[in-house]
Amino acid sequence: MKIHQLLLGLSLSGLFPALAATPALNQDLAFELVASLTTEVGPRIAGSDAERRAADWAVRHFKALGYDKVWTESFDMPGWTRGQASLEVMSPFPQPLVLTSLGGSIGTPAQGITADLVMFDSIEALQQANKAQVEGKIVFINKAMQKDKSGSFYGQVVAARARGAVEAAKLGAKAVVIRSVGTSNNRFAHTGTMKYDPEVQAIPAVAVSVPDALNLARMLEKTDKLTLKLQMNNQLEAAKSQNVIAEITGSEQPDEIVLIGAHLDSWDQGTGALDDGAGVGLVMATGALLKQQQRPKRTVRVVLYGNEEGGLLGARAYAAAHQQELAKHVMAAESDFGAGKIWKLESRFGENAQSFAQQMQQKMAHLGIELGGNETHGGPDVSVLVPAGVPVVGLMQDGTDYFDYHHTPNDTLDKVDPQALKQNLQAWLLMTDTVANSTVDLRK
Amino acid sequence: MKIHQLLLGLSLSGLFPALAATPALNQDLAFELVASLTTEVGPRIAGSDAERRAADWAVRHFKALGYDKVWTESFDMPGWTRGQASLEVMSPFPQPLVLTSLGGSIGTPAQGITADLVMFDSIEALQQANKAQVEGKIVFINKAMQKDKSGSFYGQVVAARARGAVEAAKLGAKAVVIRSVGTSNNRFAHTGTMKYDPEVQAIPAVAVSVPDALNLARMLEKTDKLTLKLQMNNQLEAAKSQNVIAEITGSEQPDEIVLIGAHLDSWDQGTGALDDGAGVGLVMATGALLKQQQRPKRTVRVVLYGNEEGGLLGARAYAAAHQQELAKHVMAAESDFGAGKIWKLESRFGENAQSFAQQMQQKMAHLGIELGGNETHGGPDVSVLVPAGVPVVGLMQDGTDYFDYHHTPNDTLDKVDPQALKQNLQAWLLMTDTVANSTVDLRK
Repeated sequence: MKIHQLLLGLSLSGLFPALAATPALNQDLAFELVASLTTEVGPRIAGSDAERRAADWAVRHFKALGYDKVWTESFDMPGWTRGQASLEVMSPFPQPLVLTSLGGSIGTPAQGITADLVMFDSIEALQQANKAQVEGKIVFINKAMQKDKSGSFYGQVVAARARGAVEAAKLGAKAVVIRSVGTSNNRFAHTGTMKYDPEVQAIPAVAVSVPDALNLARMLEKTDKLTLKLQMNNQLEAAKSQNVIAEITGSEQPDEIVLIGAHLDSWDQGTGALDDGAGVGLVMATGALLKQQQRPKRTVRVVLYGNEEGGLLGARAYAAAHQQELAKHVMAAESDFGAGKIWKLESRFGENAQSFAQQMQQKMAHLGIELGGNETHGGPDVSVLVPAGVPVVGLMQDGTDYFDYHHTPNDTLDKVDPQALKQNLQAWLLMTDTVANSTVDLRK
Repeated sequence: MKIHQLLLGLSLSGLFPALAATPALNQDLAFELVASLTTEVGPRIAGSDAERRAADWAVRHFKALGYDKVWTESFDMPGWTRGQASLEVMSPFPQPLVLTSLGGSIGTPAQGITADLVMFDSIEALQQANKAQVEGKIVFINKAMQKDKSGSFYGQVVAARARGAVEAAKLGAKAVVIRSVGTSNNRFAHTGTMKYDPEVQAIPAVAVSVPDALNLARMLEKTDKLTLKLQMNNQLEAAKSQNVIAEITGSEQPDEIVLIGAHLDSWDQGTGALDDGAGVGLVMATGALLKQQQRPKRTVRVVLYGNEEGGLLGARAYAAAHQQELAKHVMAAESDFGAGKIWKLESRFGENAQSFAQQMQQKMAHLGIELGGNETHGGPDVSVLVPAGVPVVGLMQDGTDYFDYHHTPNDTLDKVDPQALKQNLQAWLLMTDTVANSTVDLRK
C-alpha cells in the first residue's frame, strides 16, 4: 500500500476533494500501520535483524506521515535467540508435547535432560517443598490463569514464568516446565521473559500449552513415575536494540513534551499484532492525525521502545538518555494491551490536576469510556518514568481475550478487530489533543 | 484409572448395590476411553510404534470390558514419517511461516527449494493456468473453507490438498503450498493425506495456517516477486498396520454381524481426540454396555480400523479379508466426525427396509435426532462395504467446529465435550440395540 493511500481514506472528501479543504482523517490509519508492520516485517525479537528492520520501517513511515523530527537511539542488550526445543514423555506414555522455551532460558546439554516429573500447583507450593521431593527432577508448575477484562490474573500466575527456574533450582531441580501463562485451550505454548539469580544454578525453563499441561496432570493421576526428556539449544550474545522517536513539534510550547508510546519489539513466535503492533499503529497514527487537524501547542513525542519484552530495556535507556528533559514531560501514556476497546481512563496526576482527568474522560464518554482511579502506571515502558514524577494516563483496553494470544504464534493480524482499533484511535486522539493543546500542569 | 471404575459410574446403584440387580450403565464410558487413549497413547500415526501401542491398548480394554472375542488383523502399508519442515519468506519481507507437511509428501533436497510464489484462488484456477505462469515456481493455492453443520464444504476444498501437487507439477512447479483445509483462524496448519500420480513428477506439498495464508496474500498485494524457501525431510518405508476387532457374540443369530466402527490411527500432530478417539470410545463403549444390559441376539462386531488417514487402508484390508462374510453383515456404521451432538440419522437400506430407519429415529427423537435421507455412506471406512451391498447407517454429528481442529496439533481431549459424547453414546446404544435385537433384513 502506498503512503498516500494510508493518509487518504475512502472518504467523501477523498472522492470529491473540492468538498473539503483538508482531507478527512483516515480512521483506519492505525489498522493500516499494524497491517503493514506485521506483513512486511513480521516477528521482531529484540536485538535481531528483524527488530532493526522494524525500526527502519518505523523511521520510513514516521517521515511519510509528516512527523517533524525522526531519530533512533541505540542501546546495548543481551541478545537471546531461540533454538530448537523438544519435550517428550519417555515413559510410561511416550509422546511429544507442545512447548516453547521461555525467553532468556539457557539450553540443555546436547543429549538433553531426562528426569522424572514432579508437579506443583503453584510457585508458592514449590517454595514450600523440600529438597528430597525435587532434587534431580524436572519441576512442573501447573497453575491455571483466569480471564477478566483488566488481565488482573496475569500477576498471580506470571511469577511461575519469571522465577520458576530460580525456585526450582534452589531445591536441586534439573529443569522447570510451567503451564503456559495464558487463558486459551488452544495448543500453543506461551513464551515470555524469565530471570536467573546469579546466586542460584541456572536451569532450563520452558512452557507447555494448556492442553499439554492438562495431559501431564492426567498422566500423573495414572503413574507415580513419569519420565520426560527435554532438549533445547538457545543462544545468548551481545546485541543492540533501539528506540525510534518522532515528534510533532509544538507551535507554542515546543519544549513541553506529551509522550505517547508503544513497543516495537515482539516475541519471535507470532507477528506481534496484538503485542504490540496495535499500539505502534495507534500512537503513530495519533501524532500524524493530530498534526493533520492542526499543529498542537505542545510537542507530541511518539516513542517506539525497543526491547520491552526482555525487561523494559528500551524504557530504561530512554529514561537515562532523557533524564534532564523529564521535568518537561507533561504527560506520558502507552498502548500495550492488545486491540480491545478502551473502556476506562485512568491517571496518575497530582492532587489538584485530577479534575483534568475527568475533563478528558467526559470528552470520551460517547466512546463508552468511564473514569477510573488515579493509580495507573501508564503502561510498562512509561511506568519507568513514574518515579521521576512524570504524570501518566492509562487508556485501559478490554483485555478479556488478550491472554488467549499473548506471546504465542497465534498473535497475528487477523486477531485485531479494525472497528475496536478505530475506537482506540478516537480515544488516543482526544486524550493527546486535550493535553497537547492545554497549559495544564498535571503534576500539581 | 482402573477398569472397574470405567464400568461403574458414580450411580445410585454403585453407592447402594443392593438397590439394583445389575450396576447402572456408565454413561461416561466413551469419554473415559477417549481420555485413556489420548493420555496413555497420544498421537498414533498409521504404521508407527504408537499405532501398535494403540492396538495393544485397544485389545487390553476390549478384554477388560467383557468382549467375547478380541483379535487383530495385520496388513502391509507404505509408512510415512514426518521430518523437520520450514518455510520462510526470503524477500522482500523475510519471516518464517507456520506450515505442516501434507501426509505422504516427499521432502526437498537438503539445501531446500528457493523460488518465487505464484498464487491461485483454487485448484480449478491452477488447472486453467499455463506453464509460463507456473514453471520453476512454488504454487500457492489460497482457497478458504466455510463452516457448516455437515462439513459440506470440505469436499470443495480438499481437492487442493489431495491433488494440488499433481496439478502444480504438470505445469512445472517446484512445490505446492496450500491454505490449510480448515475453518479456524488459529495459527495451526492442517495436515492430511495427499497423492502423487506415477505419470507426473512428485513435488513437495505443504499447508500453511490460515493466518499465514492471509499474510502471503497481503504480501502479494505489495510485491510481484515474493521469494520463499521450503526445506523438509520426510521418510517413506514399508510398514505394517492392523485392524483391531472385538465381538459380543449374538445369543440367537451369532453369524449375523452388526458392525460398528471407528479408526484407531490418528495424524501425528494432535492426540487424535476428535479424530477419531471419540469414535473409538463410542463404539467400544456401545458393545460393552449392550452386553451389560443383555446379550444381543445378533453379533455386535466392533472394528477399530488401522490407517484410515492414509487412504482407508484398514478398511480395504478388512473388506478383502472378510469378503466371504460380507453377506452376513446386516448393518455397518462408523463414528468419525468428532464429538458434536448427533442431530440426524441417515441410512442406506433397501427400499422395503426404510421404515426401519424411521423406527430407529423415533427411538432417538428425544435426543434431538431427526430422520435424514437414504444415501449415506456410513462413514469413511464402512463406505468401502457399500459396493458389497452392506446396509449402512450414519449417525450424523454436528460438525460445525470440527474443521477448526481437524488434523492439527489442537485436536486434544479438552476439545471433546463430555455431555455431547453422552448423547452420542445413547444414540449408538439405541441404534445398535435395535438392529442387533431384530431379525430385520435391511437389504430388502
